[in-house]
Amino acid sequence: MGSPTAILLFSCPDQKGLVAKIANFIYANGGNILHADQHRDPEAGLFLSRLEWELEGFNLPREIIGAAFGAIAQPLGATWQLHFSDAVPKLSIWVSHQDHCLLDLLWRHKAGEFKAEIPLIISNHPHLKPVADQFGIAFEHLPMTKDTKAEQEQRQLELLKKYNIDLVVLAKYMQVLSSGFLHKYDRVINIHHSFLPAFMGANPYQRAFQRGVKIIGATAHYVTSDLDEGPIIEQDVVRISHRDDVKELIRKGKDVERIVLARAVRLHLQNRTLVYGNRTVVFA
Amino acid sequence: MGSPTAILLFSCPDQKGLVAKIANFIYANGGNILHADQHRDPEAGLFLSRLEWELEGFNLPREIIGAAFGAIAQPLGATWQLHFSDAVPKLSIWVSHQDHCLLDLLWRHKAGEFKAEIPLIISNHPHLKPVADQFGIAFEHLPMTKDTKAEQEQRQLELLKKYNIDLVVLAKYMQVLSSGFLHKYDRVINIHHSFLPAFMGANPYQRAFQRGVKIIGATAHYVTSDLDEGPIIEQDVVRISHRDDVKELIRKGKDVERIVLARAVRLHLQNRTLVYGNRTVVFA
Amino acid sequence: MGSPTAILLFSCPDQKGLVAKIANFIYANGGNILHADQHRDPEAGLFLSRLEWELEGFNLPREIIGAAFGAIAQPLGATWQLHFSDAVPKLSIWVSHQDHCLLDLLWRHKAGEFKAEIPLIISNHPHLKPVADQFGIAFEHLPMTKDTKAEQEQRQLELLKKYNIDLVVLAKYMQVLSSGFLHKYDRVINIHHSFLPAFMGANPYQRAFQRGVKIIGATAHYVTSDLDEGPIIEQDVVRISHRDDVKELIRKGKDVERIVLARAVRLHLQNRTLVYGNRTVVFA
Amino acid sequence: MGSPTAILLFSCPDQKGLVAKIANFIYANGGNILHADQHRDPEAGLFLSRLEWELEGFNLPREIIGAAFGAIAQPLGATWQLHFSDAVPKLSIWVSHQDHCLLDLLWRHKAGEFKAEIPLIISNHPHLKPVADQFGIAFEHLPMTKDTKAEQEQRQLELLKKYNIDLVVLAKYMQVLSSGFLHKYDRVINIHHSFLPAFMGANPYQRAFQRGVKIIGATAHYVTSDLDEGPIIEQDVVRISHRDDVKELIRKGKDVERIVLARAVRLHLQNRTLVYGNRTVVFA
Repeated sequence: MGSPTAILLFSCPDQKGLVAKIANFIYANGGNILHADQHRDPEAGLFLSRLEWELEGFNLPREIIGAAFGAIAQPLGATWQLHFSDAVPKLSIWVSHQDHCLLDLLWRHKAGEFKAEIPLIISNHPHLKPVADQFGIAFEHLPMTKDTKAEQEQRQLELLKKYNIDLVVLAKYMQVLSSGFLHKYDRVINIHHSFLPAFMGANPYQRAFQRGVKIIGATAHYVTSDLDEGPIIEQDVVRISHRDDVKELIRKGKDVERIVLARAVRLHLQNRTLVYGNRTVVFA
Repeated sequence: MGSPTAILLFSCPDQKGLVAKIANFIYANGGNILHADQHRDPEAGLFLSRLEWELEGFNLPREIIGAAFGAIAQPLGATWQLHFSDAVPKLSIWVSHQDHCLLDLLWRHKAGEFKAEIPLIISNHPHLKPVADQFGIAFEHLPMTKDTKAEQEQRQLELLKKYNIDLVVLAKYMQVLSSGFLHKYDRVINIHHSFLPAFMGANPYQRAFQRGVKIIGATAHYVTSDLDEGPIIEQDVVRISHRDDVKELIRKGKDVERIVLARAVRLHLQNRTLVYGNRTVVFA
Repeated sequence: MGSPTAILLFSCPDQKGLVAKIANFIYANGGNILHADQHRDPEAGLFLSRLEWELEGFNLPREIIGAAFGAIAQPLGATWQLHFSDAVPKLSIWVSHQDHCLLDLLWRHKAGEFKAEIPLIISNHPHLKPVADQFGIAFEHLPMTKDTKAEQEQRQLELLKKYNIDLVVLAKYMQVLSSGFLHKYDRVINIHHSFLPAFMGANPYQRAFQRGVKIIGATAHYVTSDLDEGPIIEQDVVRISHRDDVKELIRKGKDVERIVLARAVRLHLQNRTLVYGNRTVVFA
Repeated sequence: MGSPTAILLFSCPDQKGLVAKIANFIYANGGNILHADQHRDPEAGLFLSRLEWELEGFNLPREIIGAAFGAIAQPLGATWQLHFSDAVPKLSIWVSHQDHCLLDLLWRHKAGEFKAEIPLIISNHPHLKPVADQFGIAFEHLPMTKDTKAEQEQRQLELLKKYNIDLVVLAKYMQVLSSGFLHKYDRVINIHHSFLPAFMGANPYQRAFQRGVKIIGATAHYVTSDLDEGPIIEQDVVRISHRDDVKELIRKGKDVERIVLARAVRLHLQNRTLVYGNRTVVFA
């Protein structure tokens, strides 16, 4: 991965000189830009950018960079995030019955595809605890019923705090997070087992079969209080035929789910996603 | 294309001996089977099949095959169609403003991809007439308003009859056919510019952009009186990114529309599609 | 999976009446055909077919079916295999350093995607033994050098015999099997990490990078004594860009390798592949 | 397309401050950057960039921009090109017998997908002249034999000069350009009907069929004196099966060829491609 870098995700009303101002800030402080990517949305009048530069040789100490850049960003009306590539975010994976996305994420983590720690798995069912044990990850079984939901979400929030979780990954969690929960914690990625907005809601494979589609898909998105309506990070599809029954759709769909979710998590962890409105810019 | 063949599309309640009975019928009459494909839908309890055999050496004259096979099919409770590969179906292409699907179909026709004649183009706008003229095809301009729709559909039906049209291809026709029309003529394929059932109805690209999807698609389907709900023949997709505005979606979508519609028309003309319920079996 | 079925893979010189003869054999003995698929290669003058029928209600006992069908097949000059769906073939997975294909196969096996047993893992390196232990699979470490190759292949053949292995899966084994070995045991599937015939041989990702391709792929094939030249079962690809260095190609390639190999193994286990010449028919 | 822009394609040895220096040059002269994209190849030690900014409000007149930027670029050891979005490059399309790529390019041109003029078609066969006539394009028939090649290439060079051709598109031209020709004119894009480097040279579909591949493809590349070895701009693929004979491969391949070539031409015309070594950076 090389020496550590700083990553700036930046957006502001479009105006002249933005690239120059940001690049100058980095250059003036001795930084070597490794990646600079930008996007303009003319309709929204927005400039969005991602810059990555080497910390080695950069004259500002890490603790100061934010404040120093803030002085430039504020007059531009910008919102921005500053990340460091050697930071190790903490992930919590939430699951229900199915293990394919969970196992896939854990393997990729072990294979070094995700720069992150995974200290916590939460499930509304107990039976994936052995997987957590095998990987040495804490497993919290929090059963969900209509009556206990508020209480259990409170418990979830406490656990996220306790473990300093930076990102929750819903790896086929199959439970809806309440608006109240999302108001308090909103760094959540979900995998939906359809090509959104087709087949929003429950039983997408059953409904895909009934509709007689020739292609199925999966969608990874940030979770908002509007179910299956959050900003899409990644989608992919797989071709099916009349020979595939619902069981086959589910089997084929698993492969797409695994890959789409893994790509989205990796993009997020590399700070390549920027949300605005209900959209994402993916600086891939 | 070789010597002429007979093609049987067949479906009936599933039961033992169906393959044997049909194959025997062909073999007993001296036929050489070139392709035999079948599908069973256990849930629907249906057996569906497509058989193609050489007419050369087949002992039954063409005019008799239907009656002879009917004697076998009737006790099985079957519905079936018999086609001959040297028949040349007549297509009518219906368009509105856009020409990309029309030109693509006409070029493929000229290149020999479709075994068919195309004697008639119908449009609610006049301006694609020069294309029709260039290819030597009759062009009927039938403007559509709410007030004239019933009358114009009547005129359309007369034209379909006059030209003996076997298949209408809506190549971005952008008009809804009434239930009344479809009750009288239902051999119609439409191209919808989205990955159905996502973005049914109007302005799918605009809505795809607003939803922030990462992939767009197109769907070719048989037309029924439920708008965009007919049996799907073929779908395909193309990847997009945040850099693509609506104009780019439309441009990229055109390529998928062209290819998906052409594949569907070709599959239909080769008698490879069999509709049951709201689904198709595609014997590809 | 339903009740047990018989599966017939059949090929012979093309001639009239083949479908009828085979279907009659099944029907006359009370069998209900579930799937019947066929292919003709006019250039090779070959008829190839796969039939699957229910054993329940079939009048011939299993032990007799082969002999009975042989009486029909022999005069046709056919080669054929008879399989039963409730047979549980034994797989041996061979690996080297990389674990992604191995883990993927084991997970799919556990998830019920493969009807098979996996009693034996062989590797020329010791370090994947813990994976074998975790899944309760015997692990044989057989280091390979030029000098020991003949001896070790002898040992491999003994192990295949001892464990009654029906199929060897080279899951990134990275060693060439000798002609001598393949002469004695040839039921071997390999995953090659390129889109064959591009980048045959060593270091395909490095060479793909150097060539500047925009898409990479993977190929699963039966192993023959001509390296990377065996009959292809399945291929797939993934798009890359100038931003991807060799390390990224390797990472992206892993996903394609996993999926392509798994599909090929599953097709083989379902007796859907039929090899003739250097080609496969895949009755998918 | 909006108001005219300037587009800078730039590469130089990687060093600190490059983004800042270029962005400052534009900002200092009142320019508004619309797109800024960059790439670093650490192995080659190269920085490569594409910048696009509005000419409206830019203080330097067009004729001066090059010289002014040259003063910055020279000390950096850079090579660079400056383009204006309202320039209309002149294309010459070269064909042989097949018309699908030619027609596709001409339609797209008519549909506004290419900002270019197409004043000249060259062919070694006469029979596509009617297409040229229909679109009002000059058609030069230059038959090629071993004996006349040198002479005809001389004639080609004269025509390119006469018509001020900026880009030659080999749309299934099926002739090899000599090193001598390419030494004098090297702005040439070719479509090869395979997924390079698989099936370089002649008859790729025939060889793909014989190899039994499950996917075929097409490759658009800049032409160099090494046949089929030039820098790749774009590739795509389509899935095939054992049912597809060579004729079907050719038919399915045509669709990929059309799309891949059209994408490459468009990328080139939008000045989104930058060649270094035998690779392209595609700023898409």
